[in-house]
Amino acid sequence: MLAELEVVPIGTNSPSLSGLLAQVAKLIDASGLDYRVGPMGTVVEGEWDRVMQLAKQCHQAMLQSVSRVMTTIRIDDRKDKPGTGRIVQKVQSLEVKVGKPLRK
Amino acid sequence: MLAELEVVPIGTNSPSLSGLLAQVAKLIDASGLDYRVGPMGTVVEGEWDRVMQLAKQCHQAMLQSVSRVMTTIRIDDRKDKPGTGRIVQKVQSLEVKVGKPLRK
Amino acid sequence: MLAELEVVPIGTNSPSLSGLLAQVAKLIDASGLDYRVGPMGTVVEGEWDRVMQLAKQCHQAMLQSVSRVMTTIRIDDRKDKPGTGRIVQKVQSLEVKVGKPLRK
Amino acid sequence: MLAELEVVPIGTNSPSLSGLLAQVAKLIDASGLDYRVGPMGTVVEGEWDRVMQLAKQCHQAMLQSVSRVMTTIRIDDRKDKPGTGRIVQKVQSLEVKVGKPLRK
Repeated sequence: MLAELEVVPIGTNSPSLSGLLAQVAKLIDASGLDYRVGPMGTVVEGEWDRVMQLAKQCHQAMLQSVSRVMTTIRIDDRKDKPGTGRIVQKVQSLEVKVGKPLRK
Repeated sequence: MLAELEVVPIGTNSPSLSGLLAQVAKLIDASGLDYRVGPMGTVVEGEWDRVMQLAKQCHQAMLQSVSRVMTTIRIDDRKDKPGTGRIVQKVQSLEVKVGKPLRK
Repeated sequence: MLAELEVVPIGTNSPSLSGLLAQVAKLIDASGLDYRVGPMGTVVEGEWDRVMQLAKQCHQAMLQSVSRVMTTIRIDDRKDKPGTGRIVQKVQSLEVKVGKPLRK
Repeated sequence: MLAELEVVPIGTNSPSLSGLLAQVAKLIDASGLDYRVGPMGTVVEGEWDRVMQLAKQCHQAMLQSVSRVMTTIRIDDRKDKPGTGRIVQKVQSLEVKVGKPLRK
């Protein structure tokens, strides 16, 4: 399945969050799951339990740094498309249907 | 922590989803966790592992009925407010600050 | 249509947001649109333009208080169910399908 | 500001949505706004009114094809960072803080 993770620390003094988000990015990068970082969150691909274990790790790591965290997990799961690769194929399918390359 | 669960079945023929969502509502109601059903999702209160176990159950149950499911989990977690009761207190705090009762 | 609004101020020093969120709640309460406040956001009912006008007002008001705001708008819109009342009917339909009252 | 748009058609018979989503991608591509397509939604950058005009166009176009549409708009807006370019800079800042390139 695919899951977009967004971890938002609350009550941080500064509006800039990239320092705090770096620890989350490192955990995702080290997880062994395939992922894509985007401007509004990171999409990971994997089985439910591994993805949720990673989401918990990211959320708890952020809770070490600040006292309130809002985390959003958006899942897209298809049992007619088992295995991995959808993290790339979804955008490719869209480009085929649109008939031209899109900005990625 | 608080978590809003929204489970959306895709490819359902009918635009009406309440029949499919009833099984999710039954699982939440039977979970023992405190919850509130709203027009755009259900908020549950509990520890990470129990909430995510319930989210998995709801998601997997829906995947028995349809071949694609999009589930969104929005978490609000404060380590400075341990224990339960925030599911009621958050709205109460807001009403105190607004200075009048709000529609709930 | 129904729309859940969640307005999150970033960089607030304090993890408590209810003081800042009160101004958003007042704008929604004064809008004339039907609404329901829940523990994870407020659902409003109305036509696209009025709902989005209100969302903009809420977002901009929060940007007066803090320099970064994350706002999420989740819309559920059915052209086979015109008019209003879905803000109440969705939960009622679910209760009919579940066969018992749910916690609201 | 940045806004992630996700437009989900409900009641489509098929679990595959790329044919329906192609019309949304075409509208975004033709809008003149900078954008990035990802596996779980498309992020656009622009002023509130233009972004919301585009979101409305995408949502209404989908409502021509199906009778129920769920659209999610997630906004990240900073008044201390006016102008455009954040659609690229956010990920770059993160990579600087992580100290290595990330998968994009």
